[in-house]
Amino acid sequence: MKALVFQGPGRIAWQDVPDPAIEDPADAIVRVDAVTICGTDLHILKGDVPEVTPGRVLGHEAVGTVVEAGGDVRTVRPGDRVLVSCITACGRCRFCRESRYGQCRGGGGWILGHIVDGTQAEYVRVPFADLSVHPLPDSIDSADAVLLADIFPTSYEVGVLNGAVSPADTVVVVGAGPIGLAAVITARLYSPGRIVAVDLAESRLNAARSLGADATVNAGEGPEQLVADLTDGLGADVVMEAVGVPETFEMCTRMVRPGGRVANIGVHGKPAVLHLEDLWIKDVTITTGLVDTSSTPMLLRMMAAGRLPSAELITHRFELGEMEEAYDVFGRAAETGAIKVALGGPQHTAVSLPDTPAA
Amino acid sequence: MKALVFQGPGRIAWQDVPDPAIEDPADAIVRVDAVTICGTDLHILKGDVPEVTPGRVLGHEAVGTVVEAGGDVRTVRPGDRVLVSCITACGRCRFCRESRYGQCRGGGGWILGHIVDGTQAEYVRVPFADLSVHPLPDSIDSADAVLLADIFPTSYEVGVLNGAVSPADTVVVVGAGPIGLAAVITARLYSPGRIVAVDLAESRLNAARSLGADATVNAGEGPEQLVADLTDGLGADVVMEAVGVPETFEMCTRMVRPGGRVANIGVHGKPAVLHLEDLWIKDVTITTGLVDTSSTPMLLRMMAAGRLPSAELITHRFELGEMEEAYDVFGRAAETGAIKVALGGPQHTAVSLPDTPAA
Repeated sequence: MKALVFQGPGRIAWQDVPDPAIEDPADAIVRVDAVTICGTDLHILKGDVPEVTPGRVLGHEAVGTVVEAGGDVRTVRPGDRVLVSCITACGRCRFCRESRYGQCRGGGGWILGHIVDGTQAEYVRVPFADLSVHPLPDSIDSADAVLLADIFPTSYEVGVLNGAVSPADTVVVVGAGPIGLAAVITARLYSPGRIVAVDLAESRLNAARSLGADATVNAGEGPEQLVADLTDGLGADVVMEAVGVPETFEMCTRMVRPGGRVANIGVHGKPAVLHLEDLWIKDVTITTGLVDTSSTPMLLRMMAAGRLPSAELITHRFELGEMEEAYDVFGRAAETGAIKVALGGPQHTAVSLPDTPAA
Repeated sequence: MKALVFQGPGRIAWQDVPDPAIEDPADAIVRVDAVTICGTDLHILKGDVPEVTPGRVLGHEAVGTVVEAGGDVRTVRPGDRVLVSCITACGRCRFCRESRYGQCRGGGGWILGHIVDGTQAEYVRVPFADLSVHPLPDSIDSADAVLLADIFPTSYEVGVLNGAVSPADTVVVVGAGPIGLAAVITARLYSPGRIVAVDLAESRLNAARSLGADATVNAGEGPEQLVADLTDGLGADVVMEAVGVPETFEMCTRMVRPGGRVANIGVHGKPAVLHLEDLWIKDVTITTGLVDTSSTPMLLRMMAAGRLPSAELITHRFELGEMEEAYDVFGRAAETGAIKVALGGPQHTAVSLPDTPAA
C-alpha cells in the first residue's frame, strides 16, 4: 500500500510500504477513507518528538472501513464504517477503568503515528479495536467525522471540561487554529457569557467570529487590556491555551481572574515561567492534559444532530494520494490560510464502502 | 495598649500604641487572649510584603474576648470568647457570596496585620465582625484554637480540598512546618492510603510521623525516588507544596502521577519553572490559593470533638508581653525547633474572661 512515511527531521514521502496485518486478536485493519494532518505531525516533522523514528507511518486521525478484525474484536466487523480515534485504549488498566484512556498503561494511549504506524496510509492496523474505533452513523460525512478523531474531543475535554466552562463565564481562547476554534465551538455548549478569541492571524479571528466568538483581538493589540476592560479589571473565568509556546501560556495566567482556571491544551516543547509570586494568592487552577476521547460518543451524537459546525473548519480538501501537497499547504498555514485539511472524504467513501463484509 | 509594631524591614517592637476604637458599625473590638506568629509575619519582617508599611501592628491570628461591638454586629456581643479569623469577609460581594472570602472585594480578605492593624496586640479592631470572628465553645483551649485562625483552614482548604485527597491516595506533603503538619493531620480526614512528608529538618519529620505521616524522607535524601518506589514509578496522587520556594514547587510537579494534583499552599516570592514540555501530556492539575476560612466552623467542631491533635503543634509558649522573644524563637526555628509558638493562652484567658458583658 501507499503511506506517508517519516524519514527523519524535515523529510516525509508518500511511498510503498507493506500492508498492515493483524498482529494481535484485538486488532482491526481499517481501510482509510478520510484522514487529516495534525499540528503534532508538523512537530514530528521538525524532529521535536524523538520517540518517532524514521520509517514510521504518521497520522492519528482517520475515518475508514473495517476490512479485517481479530478474533477478540466484538464491537465492529468488516464493512463497518468507523472513526479511528487518536487514542487507543486497552480498556483494562487502572487509567482505562477511570475513562482516562489517554494515560492507558496497557499498551494504548497516543500510539498511532507515534510508536506504531498511523493513519496517513491506505490501511491502518488499529490495536485494541473495541475501544479504539467508533462505528459511524451514515448521516455523518467522513471528512467531517475525522475532526472527531482528535481536535473536537481534545478541545472539549482538555479545554472546556478541564476549564469547567459554566453559564455566564467569560472564556478566553488563546490561539484560533483548529484546536482553538473547536474550543470556541464546544465552549458554547455550556452557555458562557462571552467568548474572546486571541490570535495573530486575522483570517483565524474571522473564523472564530463566524464560529461563535463574541469578541476577537489580535495578540499584538493588547488582549490583556481588552479582557480586563470586559471584566471590570477582574480577569476571565476560564482561559484556554491553544498555541503551545511559553509566551501565550504566561499570557493566559495573567488574564485569569482570582478563582479562575487556565486550561492548557497546547503541545509544549519548552518550559514556561509560572509567576507564583503573583499566583499563590489568587486561587488559580491550571490544568494540562492529553485527550482521553471519552467524550467521542457524545460528540458523535452532537455531530449527527447537526450541532457541531465542523465543515467550516476544513479549508482545504485533497485526494488521499495528495498527502505531500496537503502537508505543504498545512505546514504553510500562515500563508495559505489553512485551518484543517481533509484528505479523502465523501466520494472516496462512497466508492469504497462495501455492502457486505469483506471477510 | 501594647502592640507589636512593624518599624520597617528587620525592625519590630512591642510598644505603646493608641487603643483601637469602633470605626464602622460592623466592627468589633476584641481583647486578645491568645495569639501566634505566622511564617508570613517573618516575610513581612524581612520586607517581602511591601503593602505592610511602618507603624502597622502585625498579626492575623488570635483568640480573644469581645469588649465592644458596633451597632450592626448581630452574631457576637461583649463578653463572647471568639476566634479571630485571618480572613475578614464583607459577606456581600460576589466572592463572599460564593464563600470565597479570601478574595473578598468588599474591603475584606487578608487585611489584619497587612493593611489594617492586626492581632499581635492587647486589643484588635475586627472589621465585618459577623463573618470574621467565630464564637468559641468553652471546651476549646484558647492557645489550641488560635491554630484555627489560619494554619488549619489553610492546610485543609488550600492543600487537602484543592488537592482533592481521596481514600487510598498516596499524598506527599513537601515541607513539614506548621502548615505541612496541619496538612498531614487534615489529609487524614479523607483516608489516604499513605502520607509521605518531606523536609530538611529531622525534628519536623519526627513531628510529621507522630501526627500521622506513614513515611518521611529528608529532602536531601531522594524524596522523588522514594515516591517513585512507593507508587510503582507512577508518582503520587496528590502533592502539596508547603514551603514556598521554586525548588520545592518544581519537585512537586516531578512527583505527581499522570492525572494527579499539585496543591500549592506555600507563599512564594519568586517565579518557578513550569516544565510544560513534560507536563502538557500528563493531565496534571495545579492549584494555588489563599485560604477562605469557609471551613473554620467545621474545623471548630472537629477540635471540640477532640479530633485535631493541635496541641502537639505548639512547641513554645509565651506570655503576651513576650512578643519580641517569641519572634526571636520562631524566627530561628531551624535552631530552636519551633513549630508554632503560642502567646497568652489558658491562664491568660481564665483571668480575662468576664462573666457578664463588659459593655
